[in-house]
Amino acid sequence: MPEFRRGPINDRWVIIAPERAKRPSDYKQKGPEQPAQPPESCPFCPGNEEKTPPEIYRVQEPEGSWRVRVVPNKFPALSDYPDLGCTAVEGIFDRMNGIGTHEVIIETPEHAKEIPDLPIEQIKLIVDTYILRLSKLRENEFYQYVLLFKNHGKEAGASLTHPHSQIIATPIVPSHVREMLQAAKAYYEQKERCLFCDILLTELQAEDRVIEVTDEYVVLTPYDSRFPFEMMIYPRVHSHDFTEMDEKTRWGLARALKRTLYRLKALLGDPPYNLVLHNSPNPAPRPGEPKYWSILPYDYHWRMEVIPRLTKLAGFEWGTGFYINPMPPEDAARYLREVEIPED
Amino acid sequence: MPEFRRGPINDRWVIIAPERAKRPSDYKQKGPEQPAQPPESCPFCPGNEEKTPPEIYRVQEPEGSWRVRVVPNKFPALSDYPDLGCTAVEGIFDRMNGIGTHEVIIETPEHAKEIPDLPIEQIKLIVDTYILRLSKLRENEFYQYVLLFKNHGKEAGASLTHPHSQIIATPIVPSHVREMLQAAKAYYEQKERCLFCDILLTELQAEDRVIEVTDEYVVLTPYDSRFPFEMMIYPRVHSHDFTEMDEKTRWGLARALKRTLYRLKALLGDPPYNLVLHNSPNPAPRPGEPKYWSILPYDYHWRMEVIPRLTKLAGFEWGTGFYINPMPPEDAARYLREVEIPED
Repeated sequence: MPEFRRGPINDRWVIIAPERAKRPSDYKQKGPEQPAQPPESCPFCPGNEEKTPPEIYRVQEPEGSWRVRVVPNKFPALSDYPDLGCTAVEGIFDRMNGIGTHEVIIETPEHAKEIPDLPIEQIKLIVDTYILRLSKLRENEFYQYVLLFKNHGKEAGASLTHPHSQIIATPIVPSHVREMLQAAKAYYEQKERCLFCDILLTELQAEDRVIEVTDEYVVLTPYDSRFPFEMMIYPRVHSHDFTEMDEKTRWGLARALKRTLYRLKALLGDPPYNLVLHNSPNPAPRPGEPKYWSILPYDYHWRMEVIPRLTKLAGFEWGTGFYINPMPPEDAARYLREVEIPED
Repeated sequence: MPEFRRGPINDRWVIIAPERAKRPSDYKQKGPEQPAQPPESCPFCPGNEEKTPPEIYRVQEPEGSWRVRVVPNKFPALSDYPDLGCTAVEGIFDRMNGIGTHEVIIETPEHAKEIPDLPIEQIKLIVDTYILRLSKLRENEFYQYVLLFKNHGKEAGASLTHPHSQIIATPIVPSHVREMLQAAKAYYEQKERCLFCDILLTELQAEDRVIEVTDEYVVLTPYDSRFPFEMMIYPRVHSHDFTEMDEKTRWGLARALKRTLYRLKALLGDPPYNLVLHNSPNPAPRPGEPKYWSILPYDYHWRMEVIPRLTKLAGFEWGTGFYINPMPPEDAARYLREVEIPED
């Protein structure tokens, strides 16, 4: 029997339709989604460093090789302009210059080693690099939001196979983020508690959507999951800003990322996915403009979302903004929990 | 140089990034996206009528064969329940029974003839059937919204190749629709004009995104197009309700659909697409509940949207709700305008 579900964050219903459900084996990938690009021509492989735009940052080995690199995106969605290009009116429409920053984080020199295959120390270096670049871009007075994400597999929008993440800084707080902030602010005003902490408590009490609990994180399939095997990595200790993480929490995230992406790969055979960081907007406003978001510590709670790309968006989703999910998150969590993870 | 664009309907920015642009030939489909299902096993082909759930409606030929059929979806996203199942509270979450109707409109007995290949009389029968079923479901007091859509091609979510459309009736006005209604209401209160009529006038004045103007319709690529070759079919005479169309406007829509989908096929070689009707919510409220939407004629303006599925949604879209579109709609409109359409 299908049911409508809605969480307290978005005004978005999800139809959980188990009549249309499949087992994990039906979603299992049949083989590599795309032929791997040969390392010789890969711009992210060691030896081809001149194929990327000039490097922004690297984690250097003593002997000269690198372990993580950050470079500008060669085909940026947004560019650094001298001119801020305030909102212009074009008849009934709004436009402004596409100002922003678009960076690529090359996660490892190894062409074909994804997070589940990497040693935990390497993943910790990736997390450190995320935090370093996000912190830097959060200080830029022209930017209101910095998004960190990773597209894995062609179906998930990746154009290169060499493991990499991306950062886009924008002069706008995205409407999705604004909606979450507004929900969290309203909840805090009423309850004097963090909305996301309360969601976490509810999920821990319900148990059936929890995949794993560590000292620092809870990994779960959200109540209102839009997609089969959608997962959320929640920090257990409240924090609105990803960049404020201490050493222990960074190591914990490295472990949680490795274990969570391992579960996905083991259960479904390396499916395409998007990894998205939900973080609070930047503290610094644009000069001369009001501070839109005076972020109080309880207005937000950062999380990392894993979105496997196993189903297609179709007419229903475009027409309504709602989603049809054939896999109840309780079932997805059970399958994911049952994956045996080798000790590191 | 990339730019941000926003229309007056949604709080959603689109990044138009021509640096990432491709030509139509780069999007052109290399061959059939999926092997066509053989007609023998197709549940929508004549002779296999018993493979669908019991028929709801058909357009009958005098000699007994049918030209259009309407059947319930065999794997419905929503079901008809005796119990309305009002919103229930589950801790911090909302849920309600998945009540609704999910119908399939089989557009033609011919297994492999899509709208661009069909005679205009057959497309007119499809339009008549759309209106008949939508009118019926709009009268149901349990439903607040009825969505009509078509998924074409596997990438666009279609599971069967035989041409068909779908209708889903829901007990909720979707948030996307509510957002559009709110924008239109606010605009009408201020200007005493329909927001959508004013968008249409703006587009007709600008000219560069207009693909075709007929007596009844304007076909254009929206200013804030999220996807390459996204198109909107706007009725020129104001109407908030698709089901109120007169005969002349129905014939006009049949022609506009055929010509628009022909352009897409000729330019890009039968790409996957979604066709979505944006219509006003149902006039009848649920019993005992307030009438959420007292629709005045100028609160809405129906349109049909064509969304070709040539790019992938990725981390940026999930994290922001914004879109990156590498194809400026002005270029897309020019390519689409230049397609030569054979006379019917």
